[in-house]
Amino acid sequence: MTDPLKTGATIGILGGGQLGRMLSVAASRLGFKTCIFEPGSDCPASHVANYHFKADYNDTDALTKFANACDVITFEFENIPTEALDVIEALAPIHPNRDALATSQDRFLEKNFLTRIGLQTAPYAAVDNAEMLEQAIDQIGTPAILKTRRLGYDGKGQSRLMSPDDAPQALSDMAGQQAVLEGFIDFSVEVSVIGTRSADGAISCFDPGENVHRDGILHTTTVPAKLTPSQRTDAVLLTANILNALDYVGTMGVELFVTSHGLIVNEIAPRVHNSGHWTQAGCAVDQFEQHIRAIAGWPLGDGSRHSNVVMENLIGNDVNRLPDIAKTNTAIHLYGKADAKPGRKMGHINTVTGPAS
Amino acid sequence: MTDPLKTGATIGILGGGQLGRMLSVAASRLGFKTCIFEPGSDCPASHVANYHFKADYNDTDALTKFANACDVITFEFENIPTEALDVIEALAPIHPNRDALATSQDRFLEKNFLTRIGLQTAPYAAVDNAEMLEQAIDQIGTPAILKTRRLGYDGKGQSRLMSPDDAPQALSDMAGQQAVLEGFIDFSVEVSVIGTRSADGAISCFDPGENVHRDGILHTTTVPAKLTPSQRTDAVLLTANILNALDYVGTMGVELFVTSHGLIVNEIAPRVHNSGHWTQAGCAVDQFEQHIRAIAGWPLGDGSRHSNVVMENLIGNDVNRLPDIAKTNTAIHLYGKADAKPGRKMGHINTVTGPAS
Repeated sequence: MTDPLKTGATIGILGGGQLGRMLSVAASRLGFKTCIFEPGSDCPASHVANYHFKADYNDTDALTKFANACDVITFEFENIPTEALDVIEALAPIHPNRDALATSQDRFLEKNFLTRIGLQTAPYAAVDNAEMLEQAIDQIGTPAILKTRRLGYDGKGQSRLMSPDDAPQALSDMAGQQAVLEGFIDFSVEVSVIGTRSADGAISCFDPGENVHRDGILHTTTVPAKLTPSQRTDAVLLTANILNALDYVGTMGVELFVTSHGLIVNEIAPRVHNSGHWTQAGCAVDQFEQHIRAIAGWPLGDGSRHSNVVMENLIGNDVNRLPDIAKTNTAIHLYGKADAKPGRKMGHINTVTGPAS
Repeated sequence: MTDPLKTGATIGILGGGQLGRMLSVAASRLGFKTCIFEPGSDCPASHVANYHFKADYNDTDALTKFANACDVITFEFENIPTEALDVIEALAPIHPNRDALATSQDRFLEKNFLTRIGLQTAPYAAVDNAEMLEQAIDQIGTPAILKTRRLGYDGKGQSRLMSPDDAPQALSDMAGQQAVLEGFIDFSVEVSVIGTRSADGAISCFDPGENVHRDGILHTTTVPAKLTPSQRTDAVLLTANILNALDYVGTMGVELFVTSHGLIVNEIAPRVHNSGHWTQAGCAVDQFEQHIRAIAGWPLGDGSRHSNVVMENLIGNDVNRLPDIAKTNTAIHLYGKADAKPGRKMGHINTVTGPAS
């Protein structure tokens, strides 16, 4: 294991959105400088970072300069082009590792991995064409949901099949991309666990949060989640299992369905996660700082929670409620995005609802 | 009253130290951009700000460009040259106002102001020369402390007189600067109140914190302070009194001595204050955000406290304890300063010690 990164070192972040912004602020709390790589100008993370490389992910020259300016590199989104990673990896360490990235970039590989390490997922089958979709429907039944294997988020790249008759439309919605058919899960609640693994293999998980979605986008996360003590323990242990199996360094979000047959893994995200934003208000060390600590070779923070919290996303015109929200006892986090487009995550708020229970 | 500043507006901060750094992060949470004016390169605030004007306070051209780039301007230290304010004030609003700044820049004027509004201070007298010092000692007695009227902080520019015999040395320590002699106060505890006043005159104060100094520098602040309910109320009311009398907009730190004769005002600082750093861990809205809200014309946040906190400064080589501190359930704030010189504030830590009591 390498020495811990010293104060004043520079952490590179691929991606300049709100997750990069909050990672950057967390890095600054530990005395690190940050360097953002992001094609867009005036991106949220650049407002709070030391440096911003504004270039495309196929710009080898810019990637080289970026990597040379950084002591360690991480990312805020999982769909980083492999070619960009090839350039960077030769010049600076990247955490989490590329295997973890490759696994979670592809819903089919991800479910294969989860099955291999003994975890439950929704029934699933790869779908490349109409024939495979027909077979998958025979195997899984309907209702089911067809999802692109790659690049989907917040409900994008998904199509529901209420009956086999919906197959042609669903396949058409995939626009020729490889897909995976997933059976519907009858769950009582969705929770997620935010876990972090350090370079020396220590693991710290935050308490599971309970998620409510609206229009396919996370609306609120509430801690504590409505779980039995054994469900809570199971959720944390299976997250640790995933982190270890991937030899993961950094913070990961694991979404779980709570069912009468146990916990089913919905998906994993190899990065800090929207459903972990509550940790900013509920814990001494939040998910962003845990990630920075891990990739910097620092000891992980104590992930224990001092307060109960409700996190609510501000989507699109939700920001118009700000004058009223600002009067309440609520922590506001805005991302510095100029236009409040529908479905766009503009910020979030954290409300402490009481001491940890 | 002007309209509240919109997300995306730019807030200018004079001074690039740790207070500017934490103000900058707080501004970013509300979606604002920040612009630092600071002669030093690689200053703590520049690491987390959008823009850094690196220029001297007598550089009229740079000050003009800075002010034109900002929608509103504030400062992180009280000793801003008047000439710089003259240039800026014509171009952008400055909060807090210059009267507040002028009053708190000069210990003698500050004590005159406090006396005028009916508050208690230590016995004091202006000292310009040996004759005035002799008269002041006759009036106040010894032990006493001679302080420069301007530019002192963290115990600098101060000299103790244990007896009248110390007068020549004390006067020599002032190096020709105007000074003020202050009588010693027999106090049980020092507390400070961090209060904020908005543009429309609303006031919100945080619970008083109890301060312990070491070598003349703040060592710890603990909330709640050991105060009776009526002392707590008095402390908050007198802070509100000061804020109103100065027609103040922004956050102020008020240091108080608790004595058997009531609360005595030690000094006021027209800015966010080291003894208010605990609010980062104990409240939904911290002192930095309250300041930004006030100068941006936003409603103040709810200043209520959800947790008890101990804040400890990391001075000089205290940062060598970081590997151990990082393992505890403690929020770390490092300022990104390169060298850990003796007496230099390198960072602070906040430990939540339990639910608010």
